[in-house]
Amino acid sequence: MRRFTIGLIGLGTVGSGVIQLIRSRHRYVQDKYGVDLQIKTVCDLKIDPKFKRTLGQTAYTKDFRTILNDPEIDVVTELIGGHHPALEIIQGALKNSKHVVTANKAVISNCGRELFRLAHKMERGIYFETAVLAGVPIIKTIAEGIAGNRYNGLYGIVNGTCNYILSEMETNKLGFNEAVKLAQAKGYAESDPTLDINGMDSAHKLAILVSLAMGKFLRVQDIHTEGITHISKEDLYYADEMGLTIKLLAIAKKKGQVIEVRVHPTLISRKHPLASVKGVNNAVLLEADAVGDVLLVGQGAGQMSAASGVFSDLINLAIANADTDRTWIGDNPVEIEQLGLRSMDEIETEFYIRLMVLDRPGVLSRITGILGKYGISIASVTQKAVSKNTAVPLVMLTHSAKERAVRLALKKIGQLKAVKARPVAIRMEEL
Amino acid sequence: MRRFTIGLIGLGTVGSGVIQLIRSRHRYVQDKYGVDLQIKTVCDLKIDPKFKRTLGQTAYTKDFRTILNDPEIDVVTELIGGHHPALEIIQGALKNSKHVVTANKAVISNCGRELFRLAHKMERGIYFETAVLAGVPIIKTIAEGIAGNRYNGLYGIVNGTCNYILSEMETNKLGFNEAVKLAQAKGYAESDPTLDINGMDSAHKLAILVSLAMGKFLRVQDIHTEGITHISKEDLYYADEMGLTIKLLAIAKKKGQVIEVRVHPTLISRKHPLASVKGVNNAVLLEADAVGDVLLVGQGAGQMSAASGVFSDLINLAIANADTDRTWIGDNPVEIEQLGLRSMDEIETEFYIRLMVLDRPGVLSRITGILGKYGISIASVTQKAVSKNTAVPLVMLTHSAKERAVRLALKKIGQLKAVKARPVAIRMEEL
Repeated sequence: MRRFTIGLIGLGTVGSGVIQLIRSRHRYVQDKYGVDLQIKTVCDLKIDPKFKRTLGQTAYTKDFRTILNDPEIDVVTELIGGHHPALEIIQGALKNSKHVVTANKAVISNCGRELFRLAHKMERGIYFETAVLAGVPIIKTIAEGIAGNRYNGLYGIVNGTCNYILSEMETNKLGFNEAVKLAQAKGYAESDPTLDINGMDSAHKLAILVSLAMGKFLRVQDIHTEGITHISKEDLYYADEMGLTIKLLAIAKKKGQVIEVRVHPTLISRKHPLASVKGVNNAVLLEADAVGDVLLVGQGAGQMSAASGVFSDLINLAIANADTDRTWIGDNPVEIEQLGLRSMDEIETEFYIRLMVLDRPGVLSRITGILGKYGISIASVTQKAVSKNTAVPLVMLTHSAKERAVRLALKKIGQLKAVKARPVAIRMEEL
Repeated sequence: MRRFTIGLIGLGTVGSGVIQLIRSRHRYVQDKYGVDLQIKTVCDLKIDPKFKRTLGQTAYTKDFRTILNDPEIDVVTELIGGHHPALEIIQGALKNSKHVVTANKAVISNCGRELFRLAHKMERGIYFETAVLAGVPIIKTIAEGIAGNRYNGLYGIVNGTCNYILSEMETNKLGFNEAVKLAQAKGYAESDPTLDINGMDSAHKLAILVSLAMGKFLRVQDIHTEGITHISKEDLYYADEMGLTIKLLAIAKKKGQVIEVRVHPTLISRKHPLASVKGVNNAVLLEADAVGDVLLVGQGAGQMSAASGVFSDLINLAIANADTDRTWIGDNPVEIEQLGLRSMDEIETEFYIRLMVLDRPGVLSRITGILGKYGISIASVTQKAVSKNTAVPLVMLTHSAKERAVRLALKKIGQLKAVKARPVAIRMEEL
């Protein structure tokens, strides 16, 4: 199996998440993808002594050049963020014929074009799934998932802090400042949240998405950018009255050979799927010309979501590097996890049960008696109409119950004379 | 540039869509992906004479063996559907060392394991993005986009016919039979819709998703499958009263080392993003253990969505086959389309405008006068409170107006003595 050797620069939250994933899933990745991910060296200016003791065979250095100059290292993972020296690290890695994985939206949005040229020249890959929507694979979706399509429009909720603040203002009627404080208390906003709430973070991400989807490299300063600081809870209330909601959207539209790009608070219909993207969730709606509208939603921030994006990039690069052919089912179509299959009888869900019953004394008691006998406990019962002569609907919700018990109970209930149609049972899922 | 030679079997709706995409985007794919897609031979038992005349250099055959035995053909695209001879075509192609692209959910769900083994042995790829959710890239997302994650759950609305019927029953209070007829009239249901409405189509797709996401190969007959024929519009009405809606869900959950799989109508909260997936749209919610919940929504059926999936598979296979290194930005990071950038001043949207105004005679007339002077037409005006002494909110919606006009008008309006705070303007988008 081909070994893929990693140098990892930046041991912050995301970096330690990546190390955790690589270590805990080493065997799983070998079995499933046919590649052997090894972290040879990690680098940061400081390292927690406790963490250092867990490194084992992995070397630690304060000097990123140690990694750039190591001929054994296949890929440099840059997770320090910011412009310098991240840019120099990425350039240096490519020049030394190493692949690059980075989560750095500032560098990719500002210097992407030059870096992609350099990567192309050096015949090396630069993967950056995590730069937009963290591990939610929007980059891969645009670049490969919907290959060959052109994009007419792109609408993104790409900043979780802003979306959380607006959601709180709408749902819990908080004022803007209160919502910011709550976001900070929950760890969803920095102590200085400026770059989030003024829209700049969204503008960086929009520049990256537009370069991929529309093949246009933008300077971030060319993107009209407004934040959410001028939005009041009253605006959200009035919007709601009109069936609308307010989201900070990153927007790109193509009309003919001209595109427009902008980041600003935007009124959209409450019925649109983007309106249901709440809290710190992120989403991008792509208007692709062949496949149609595609919406991708997920946790666009957080340690493990970001670490997952970096981990996924490393696996995909390793596969491409190892030049293994593989089906999507894994390197070798074996059942790695050897999962068992639960029988339907044993599955437990809550149920909605609708019975058509004659409205007579004692009927409800017989029905609930049967349910009780099978251990099915009832959360609510409503009779939906009154009629002496015809059957009326009786609607019940149950607590969690086993499939087999419900099936047997309904069979008994269906045999009652007062029950006039086959009982309808619909399972409920809390998603 | 490496040529990638295609043999295409099945000239139905999807097949002709694929041919259209390959031909109309030939140059675009060369420029962007660095690969040269060529259809050498097409095959079907019948061919429309008009269509035949448009084939040009492309050969036509009635015998699929002509394609399987042609050493120049790199990839066989199987679009005839059904079990036989689709299975023999796919096996034959792999045995003859050809890659395979297929949209065939029956074959992949029933014979996937054997076919993946064969592909692995022959070191050839078998791509099948279109088998689930047509061109919406759920296969690629599970297999590569979220690499290295394990999945704890998976919830899919994977049959557009059923989702359309349930949506119509809910929104327009149609009975089940009426809704089926409407779906047929609109082309969303077959004249015999059995395999859609009995859930079997969903079960096939669930088997494919589970094999990818959970590494478990299921027999379709092991999936508990219920359709939607027993659901009444009253059930949807009662569900709605409880804040719920009913969707036909394909469900897989992993608990420990056991999975449960089932297809049945399911009550879910109306607030959940899956509840907002209406009409013929499809969606899959993935519960991934590192990245968290990821939701993908799009048009899971239709000629061009399906053709897009096949086209995307062909491009991705061609790239893998050509062994070109490439960044996600395209083979060569040039701006293929040379798009212009619209200045913010020229962008047109509708606006929500909130002014804090003193409630005095003549104020509204002065404000609307200024808006009119700048060519901004008003869709609605509401004064949100009454007060003699303090400023009250005045909320207006405009028709589509140019950014520059709105900016200049609001500057003037902001200078009026009766306007007590900086005007708030929020753009509106119809998505």
